[in-house]
Amino acid sequence: MGVAEQARRSREAATVLATASRRLKDSALDAMASSLLERYAEILVANQADIVRSSASDTPAHLIDRLRLNVDRLHAMADGLRQVAGLPDPVGEVLRGSTLLNGLELRQIRVPLGVIGIIYEARPNVTADAAGLCLKAGNAVLLRGSSSARDSNAAIVSVLRDAVASVSLPPDAIQLVDATSRDSVKELMRARGLVDVLIPRGGADLIRSVVEESTVPVIETGVGNCHVYVDEAADLDMALRILLNAKTSRPSVCNAAESLLVHSAVSDEFLARALPALRDAGVTVHGDQAVVAAGSSVGVPVVPATDEDYAAEYLSMDISAAVVPSLDDAIVHIRRYGSSHTEAIVTGSQAAARRFTAEVDAAAVAVNASTRFTDGGEFGFGAEIGISTQKLHARGPMGLPELTSTKYLVVGDGHIR
Amino acid sequence: MGVAEQARRSREAATVLATASRRLKDSALDAMASSLLERYAEILVANQADIVRSSASDTPAHLIDRLRLNVDRLHAMADGLRQVAGLPDPVGEVLRGSTLLNGLELRQIRVPLGVIGIIYEARPNVTADAAGLCLKAGNAVLLRGSSSARDSNAAIVSVLRDAVASVSLPPDAIQLVDATSRDSVKELMRARGLVDVLIPRGGADLIRSVVEESTVPVIETGVGNCHVYVDEAADLDMALRILLNAKTSRPSVCNAAESLLVHSAVSDEFLARALPALRDAGVTVHGDQAVVAAGSSVGVPVVPATDEDYAAEYLSMDISAAVVPSLDDAIVHIRRYGSSHTEAIVTGSQAAARRFTAEVDAAAVAVNASTRFTDGGEFGFGAEIGISTQKLHARGPMGLPELTSTKYLVVGDGHIR
Repeated sequence: MGVAEQARRSREAATVLATASRRLKDSALDAMASSLLERYAEILVANQADIVRSSASDTPAHLIDRLRLNVDRLHAMADGLRQVAGLPDPVGEVLRGSTLLNGLELRQIRVPLGVIGIIYEARPNVTADAAGLCLKAGNAVLLRGSSSARDSNAAIVSVLRDAVASVSLPPDAIQLVDATSRDSVKELMRARGLVDVLIPRGGADLIRSVVEESTVPVIETGVGNCHVYVDEAADLDMALRILLNAKTSRPSVCNAAESLLVHSAVSDEFLARALPALRDAGVTVHGDQAVVAAGSSVGVPVVPATDEDYAAEYLSMDISAAVVPSLDDAIVHIRRYGSSHTEAIVTGSQAAARRFTAEVDAAAVAVNASTRFTDGGEFGFGAEIGISTQKLHARGPMGLPELTSTKYLVVGDGHIR
Repeated sequence: MGVAEQARRSREAATVLATASRRLKDSALDAMASSLLERYAEILVANQADIVRSSASDTPAHLIDRLRLNVDRLHAMADGLRQVAGLPDPVGEVLRGSTLLNGLELRQIRVPLGVIGIIYEARPNVTADAAGLCLKAGNAVLLRGSSSARDSNAAIVSVLRDAVASVSLPPDAIQLVDATSRDSVKELMRARGLVDVLIPRGGADLIRSVVEESTVPVIETGVGNCHVYVDEAADLDMALRILLNAKTSRPSVCNAAESLLVHSAVSDEFLARALPALRDAGVTVHGDQAVVAAGSSVGVPVVPATDEDYAAEYLSMDISAAVVPSLDDAIVHIRRYGSSHTEAIVTGSQAAARRFTAEVDAAAVAVNASTRFTDGGEFGFGAEIGISTQKLHARGPMGLPELTSTKYLVVGDGHIR
């Protein structure tokens, strides 16, 4: 079955989902969670096939680890689905309402988006997470996972579809798109009118190509070149704690820090402590002249940074670093190199915090907190479908409300204009 | 100057606009309004040049009328700008806020989108309206009007830029893009990273081509194939009043009705009254077999309708019509042919109204009210930049809040994860 035909089936399923009650949707989510655990054997067998195939093709060990499922990971997936069942239903929420001068009653309510396409890489747990969130918000989903996880994803989707059917909702609410052909991505991108939005989750290249080629509206996610700016009025102990956490607690994720900016008034003192600490944590610093000099005075080697370094999302134990003469220069640097994901300032100055939060344009701006908090779970959304770094529709961690659109209801008693 | 260079200047201006106070932005809007009136002579001279050129090229009289400015129309433009000055500033509005379990303070606030590109046709009053709305919401705007209005638009933009500069805001907040070359539209569509959103306002062809080709995110506007469905439980007097208003009060606009659906239980009685009334109002009906038959029994000629008729946005004194055996069939018809703009039901049945509003997926659904109310002014938004018929970001009339994005502020006292 081609993607267009799948999308037509999604559209049909979406019309049913759109008016399904919360109770019914939550029953589906509970059934999905239970089925994942009951049918663990067939999922793990399929997963084993993916792992054997990847091992045979010299896939790096850390990627094979991301691919691997076990009973614990299935429990985590099931827990995630049950958690989504516990979240309030965004559909039907009244966002605004008023009675107009002429007596017309106006209400703006949340409605599902319709059909959501998700293009993602590697980890098969995303399959269950994304399916659960889309279903709860009343949407049908077309899942295009990576080819390396194709057997795992097929098994998971088969289990989830059966669970959806078991509560008499249409199983086509959750469909898997052929992961072995590149054409399936192209077809998804051209399914305007059938697919309401595409969410690419993955590397910068994937996201760029979808943005460039899709005629279906896209929500861009995830590239994070996040900065930590240590202001002249910073508490340097706090700054060091935040820097280490932002850089090293999980370097492979988009909300990890990739760049350090230090005000020149405190750079000698701060770098003399931060550079050895970063080295001890296993981080390579790519610095400007001032940082290189600070490194040599404390015996820590610093790699001279290029323009590419300041623009890089390393996703590794590397960080670029520069000394800036003022808050203004920090803001200009971030404006030039940042990816508008998360930018943090460490400062004791209310004036500096106010200017930084007002003038830095990003999905999230943190004051005296690690960049790592930009996350749907941390923000209390219960779950997230990704982190939008674009400005339209959704910006920052996307939870259930971001998977909806709106509709105006206009109720009169014969009103004409 | 090329579009890319203009867009870079817009970006610079946008960073200033983003933090401008409401007081300053309102001063700019007042200065813009006053300047339009003070410098009416140069605007009208420029407008005369557009009119002479259009007349020489056999432009239809109604298009020349849309192009024509006079002192009254300039007063209306100035009033529009003053009205926008009176609207609340969306920037800085706190949309959500909470203190997380760990004590982090989280707030989601409205911020400007940045740089907005608007591609529009004909009427030069749009130039002032769009500039005013974008500026109030803290955005820089790139205006690409029609070539036929190029002198008028140039004069208006020159006046508005001077007014903006007079309050010490950057005049590049309002720029006009070359209207004589098609390349300028292409360049706007490729200015990803410089332009944050493109809003095409105009005919279906313009909108389709922008949607297909733009790598800048687009907000689709305006195509309205709006239906009036007369239910079996309708008050037929009310239905006739609503039908005539929806079709004839202003047939050239997107919220005018283009299609009539009548439940078969009341179609004989309703059509016997509606068809003569439509004929008397100058409306040509394109009907299915049942409507043609009803027409001949009351001596009103009805043109047999094709599939194209049901899909058409006539924007003229034409309407397609069909008899449907049930509410379900009406919903299926609308799902098939509608453009998700505005759909109306006339019914006395609460159950029918509930089903219609839940199952019809459109920007606006009206119960016992004319389709003509889908309008920013009517909805009490003060002004609108267009009516979105897409589901992402904004749906329905777009006022000031729809010209903004959001930003999360995360404030801690040394929080790490």
